This record gives sequence, C-alpha cells and structure tokens, in this order.
Amino acid sequence: MRSLASHPAARGLEDDAAVLEVGGEALVITHDMMAEGTHYLPNADMADVAWKLVAVNLSDLAAKGAEPLGVLLGHMLGEGDDRFLAGLREALHEFDVPLLGGDTIAGTGPRAFGLTAIGRATHSPVPDRRGAKPGDVIHLCGRIGEAMLGFEAMRDSTGADSAAYRRPRPLIEEGQALAPLAHAMMDVSDGLLLDAQRMAIASGSTFALDSTAIAAIAPPERLDDAMRWGDDYALLLAAAPDAALPVATRVIGQVMPRGDHPLLIDGIPPPVGAPLGYEHRNS
Amino acid sequence: MRSLASHPAARGLEDDAAVLEVGGEALVITHDMMAEGTHYLPNADMADVAWKLVAVNLSDLAAKGAEPLGVLLGHMLGEGDDRFLAGLREALHEFDVPLLGGDTIAGTGPRAFGLTAIGRATHSPVPDRRGAKPGDVIHLCGRIGEAMLGFEAMRDSTGADSAAYRRPRPLIEEGQALAPLAHAMMDVSDGLLLDAQRMAIASGSTFALDSTAIAAIAPPERLDDAMRWGDDYALLLAAAPDAALPVATRVIGQVMPRGDHPLLIDGIPPPVGAPLGYEHRNS
Repeated sequence: MRSLASHPAARGLEDDAAVLEVGGEALVITHDMMAEGTHYLPNADMADVAWKLVAVNLSDLAAKGAEPLGVLLGHMLGEGDDRFLAGLREALHEFDVPLLGGDTIAGTGPRAFGLTAIGRATHSPVPDRRGAKPGDVIHLCGRIGEAMLGFEAMRDSTGADSAAYRRPRPLIEEGQALAPLAHAMMDVSDGLLLDAQRMAIASGSTFALDSTAIAAIAPPERLDDAMRWGDDYALLLAAAPDAALPVATRVIGQVMPRGDHPLLIDGIPPPVGAPLGYEHRNS
Repeated sequence: MRSLASHPAARGLEDDAAVLEVGGEALVITHDMMAEGTHYLPNADMADVAWKLVAVNLSDLAAKGAEPLGVLLGHMLGEGDDRFLAGLREALHEFDVPLLGGDTIAGTGPRAFGLTAIGRATHSPVPDRRGAKPGDVIHLCGRIGEAMLGFEAMRDSTGADSAAYRRPRPLIEEGQALAPLAHAMMDVSDGLLLDAQRMAIASGSTFALDSTAIAAIAPPERLDDAMRWGDDYALLLAAAPDAALPVATRVIGQVMPRGDHPLLIDGIPPPVGAPLGYEHRNS
C-alpha cells in the first residue's frame, strides 16, 4: 500500500509538527495515532498505551522547543478503559498538561486512539529538520536502545526493567533549552539512522555519524540494532561547533556538504537493503 | 459500557470544543473521530467519509463563531484511500482550510479516522452552551431532517438526493455572524431535542419548544423523527428577544426559568423512555 504522502491532498501530512502563527505567538500542533495490533499488543496494559500516546505527542512538541498547552484525545471505548484513563491521568499530571477536550466513540474490532497536542513555541524561528549546515556538529540528547531492551524484556518476560519502552519520557525542558541553539532538531521516534537520514535529506546535506560516539549512549553490544530501533524519543540536533549547549548531549557526528549518500557511518554508507528504522508510514 | 465522562481524568472530554487563550487570541480546537461500522458503513464512498469528517469538525468551530485556521488528520491506511483523499481535498478546498499535518498509520480490522480542527474566535466571549437566559428566544439556523432523508435515500436506494447526509455543510459564516448576539450556541449534531436539552441543562434553564415552528424547517410529515435525528449541523442559539440577527433563523421556542423538566415541547415534557437523539457517547 502506498503512502498517503505521495498524494497532493496529503501534502504536509508527513512533515514535522505543524507551526501556526496566531496573535504573535507560534503555536506548535501535532497529532499521533496508536492502533491495537500495530502500535501495541492486545495484551498491553492500557495505562502504558495511554502514557505512550501522551509521551509521543509531547516529544514532537519537545523537538520544536515548545511548551505544552494541552491535549485533545480521540478515544475508542473498549476493554481496559479504567487503566487507560489511569495512565492518561498519570502522564498528564507528570508532564503538567491539561486535557482540553476530544471525542469518545464506540468502535468494532481493534481499537485506535488519537492525541492532538498543542504547544507554544518558546523560541523563534521554531526549529525544524531542514536547517542543518555543513560544518555543524550533530548532537544527541538522550540515549537510544533503551526502549528496545524494554520491549525485549516484556516480550521475553525476563523481568528486566521495561519502563523505557512502556513509559517513555519526552525531553520537554531539554527541547526548550536547546531550541535557541539548534539549527535543526527532531525527535528520534523511528530509529536514529532513519531519522538522521531524514534530517540530512531535508537539510540538503550529508550526515557523517561516528559509531564509537553512538556506542557511548547505547547498549554497546547491541549497537547495530539500537541505531535502528525507535521509541526512545531522544532529540537529534545540529548546532554550530562552538555552540555552548545548556544541557548534556553527546556529539555523534558532523554535517557535511551533500555527497553521494545522505548518511555515512564511520565514513561509509549504511548497507543497501537493510532498514534504517521503523517505516511506519507504509505498510 | 459506561461513558468516559464519568472519570475524573476525562473531565472536559464531553464538552464543547476547547477554547485556549494564546497571545491575545482565543483559539478554538475540536477533535472528532469516525469509525467504520459506527459512523459509516463499510460500503460507503470514502470521499463522503472524508468530507463528513472535515464538516463535523468545522461545524464545531462554526458553533463558536470561529474562523477555521487548519486541520490535522489522523488516518488509518486502507481500501479507498484515493477516494478518501479526493473527498478530503474537496472539503478543504470548499471551505478554504489548509491541511496542517497529522499522522498516517497502518491498522488491522475496521478503520478509524480522527480530525483536529483549529480556529480563531472572531468574537469574545466565545459562545458556549451555558449562557441561555430566561426570556431569551431560541433560534435555529438551518434545517433539520434533511440528513435523515438523505440517509434513507441511500439505505433504500431510492435515487433521491442524499447530499445532505453525505456532504453536510458547516454553517461557518453564519456562526461568525451570530456569535456576537448569541447568549448560547451549539451545533445540532446529535438531534435537536437532545442538543436543546443539553443546552437547557448547561444553562440551568428550561427550553420550551414549539413544534409548529420546528415543522417549518423540517419535513413536516416526519417531524417527530427529524427532531431526534442528528447529522444536520444546524446551529441552535439563544438570543435576546430584541436581537436583530444578521442571518436568517427560525424562532423555535423560548428560554424559561428552570422548571421540573429541562425540555418542553408544546408545553409538555417529551415522553419518558423515547430517545431524544443519538447518544454516541455511550455504547
């Protein structure tokens, strides 16, 4: 099935969170859906599903340096609604965001939920994925691979900590602190390599990543998988080499003029045919 | 299954569209979902489904006197996506509203879609359903029962016009014109009697409706059904008796001090046990 993005009517649907200028403020608006069987398993704790739905949308705001103002929920009624609402309440309380409204519907079969998050940009211009410049340094704020390990702990019932997968934490304060210095910024929702390649293409440059540096913020024995796994919601950004970033980040590469490949790892392009991450836009 | 509204974490979910003050402007934000099997039949033209998804959300903005600024789509990929996008494009073009963003996901089983619409209030205070005062006159802008007839024409393949059901038109300009004079306003999405009762309860008053007046804006031989059918997206409002409304409306009743019943039709409460409209909040 082809992506909606190729259709002119759907232009804009695959981009970053939307930015809307209203009354001298820049609003940042994002909408993400989660569906049973696609984004969570039928036996998942619905409290975790609700938490994640909030977290992934707030992470989109974080990547814009936006302060969350509220969310709207699209909720399909079903089993586990008490747990869903408990998780929703926990997440909204944890990140101090009000539920502004939404819709509840009856449905048949597997369920789907949508969440719209609205924020106020704290810095102008609002960072997007297009502004990385040759000479910039590529930073990652946060770690990767933790959600992967959490997922595997759940799947294999090892008893190991799975919170990074079940209860991701959007880097809201970090995003606001980094926005004034970021030439480009996005959250790593679909895998570091895939999202880095997206930013490189959007910026018309080549991203040269250093796997040794990445290994310091990933489970080293699982580095290759971790670079292709999503759900960690770290922030990927490009900034001037002399920028004094106000929060801890790891330098993982350099922005170069656009070469034959948008992405290089230790100087060579990733192997052809191996997925770079989770391509959830297509089925 | 109980409604989510009874849960403290879901407070606000069943209200009007949300109003958010940002930068001296009042933003109006609404989110409605549509699910296969609940809101449309599996054999529906997906172009009509997309149109309706846009229209129902823009109608929520219309009831607030808001000027639409844009929409975000939550789209579950599936059969008929070309038709869905054609209908989406038609509706967005017709009502001159941009697609700001959204999300596309893969799903399994029956599909669900969500749309978030964002508007800018053109009048402050933004009308809601709580402000009707005893002595006010109750108006309806638009007709009721047309969607019912359109639905029946489709269901029975009579060949009669079904556009009112398939392609409802939100009263955006009318809503903006009426907002400065409306003490309370809402769109009639779930049936005139049900929505009138909701406005009466929210306003702490009794709405006394006149069936003869309603018959003039409904198919008279189907008046009883028409008052209980939704999907027409007329605007229900209460205004001072001497208000000179700038667009055509029909006076259908009076606001009275709260009596034993929130709703009277020709002086008597509606029969107990008969539904007043479409209670889509509960299953």
